[in-house]
Amino acid sequence: MNKIITIGREFGSGGRELGRRLARELGFDYYDKEILTEISKHTSLSEEYVQRVVESQPHQLFPITTGRSFLYVDTQPLQQAGAVFLAQQEIIREMADRSSCVIVGRCADHILRDRKPFRIFVYADMASRIARCRSRAPEGENLTDKEYKQQIQQVDKARARYYDFYTDMKWGDKLNYELCINTTNQDIPTLVPYLAKMFM
Amino acid sequence: MNKIITIGREFGSGGRELGRRLARELGFDYYDKEILTEISKHTSLSEEYVQRVVESQPHQLFPITTGRSFLYVDTQPLQQAGAVFLAQQEIIREMADRSSCVIVGRCADHILRDRKPFRIFVYADMASRIARCRSRAPEGENLTDKEYKQQIQQVDKARARYYDFYTDMKWGDKLNYELCINTTNQDIPTLVPYLAKMFM
Repeated sequence: MNKIITIGREFGSGGRELGRRLARELGFDYYDKEILTEISKHTSLSEEYVQRVVESQPHQLFPITTGRSFLYVDTQPLQQAGAVFLAQQEIIREMADRSSCVIVGRCADHILRDRKPFRIFVYADMASRIARCRSRAPEGENLTDKEYKQQIQQVDKARARYYDFYTDMKWGDKLNYELCINTTNQDIPTLVPYLAKMFM
Repeated sequence: MNKIITIGREFGSGGRELGRRLARELGFDYYDKEILTEISKHTSLSEEYVQRVVESQPHQLFPITTGRSFLYVDTQPLQQAGAVFLAQQEIIREMADRSSCVIVGRCADHILRDRKPFRIFVYADMASRIARCRSRAPEGENLTDKEYKQQIQQVDKARARYYDFYTDMKWGDKLNYELCINTTNQDIPTLVPYLAKMFM
């Protein structure tokens, strides 16, 4: 049976790096942004639009009640968000059927829950997340620590809302994961080979 | 330099078993209840009394203010709780000086923070904690699930209060640990050899 490892991660914690290295170490397939490309193919929505939909806050797409009357809201974005999630679900299941793999984000832990994936959550303290963001920033980007912190908090808030909405669980709650790894004082390239041995 | 591994754990999660097996696998010393015996020797308080003090809720030992007047409360228990914590601190530092070791509970992660211990937190869902408690119950003990749940919650509440009081951090908050391990679906004897490789 294929081994499935899912990775949830705080923004700036190095979860993606950990996932990619883990997959390479194990010879497993690795899926991250590839999922968005696939959704785009399946739904004939552009990749940029899909990206925007999966990063949006789903509750904002619901009709809004003002006092006793419903404010009219076009339901199309909501339908599209639902369609994108269904496509994502289908694609992730296909990926898990195909081979052993590491999947980053996208509620894969919940979507694949019947197959008992090994669920990892990667996190770190704010200072080291800011340092990581800064070290990976494109040339010319010159944000202050405060601006990085705001960016990190915004991304995490969106991830949490998306996850909580579709899974009915709490993003980052350690009970939803087999292992939670704090990368604050740990070197990811050193850590991964040890971690990989658990799946060999 | 000695390697220090500290283990915090939810009651019934198998943290003690994990710690004991990890120490054995690594050839490290293992400290758990031994600490209470040592405190008892250092303070000339009985082991039973020390046990009671370390399990009590420290804030209950403070003088109580009623309206504007102080209600007289014998401060001796508070002084003794403080003395016990100081003794504990000293003993744990001595243990860490002596050899590489695994220390379960007793705020060792905080007491030894300057030595950068590797901090593990072990947890599990309520159903598997109840099952573990039941499987380890002394013959004749016949508690219902509800009674086990109450016992587990009480012990954890006392642990959290004790930890939070002496460390000014939040017990079980994943940011205070390098690794959080959910034993719900994991077999501890299988897991430990992999974990041990991280420290070899």
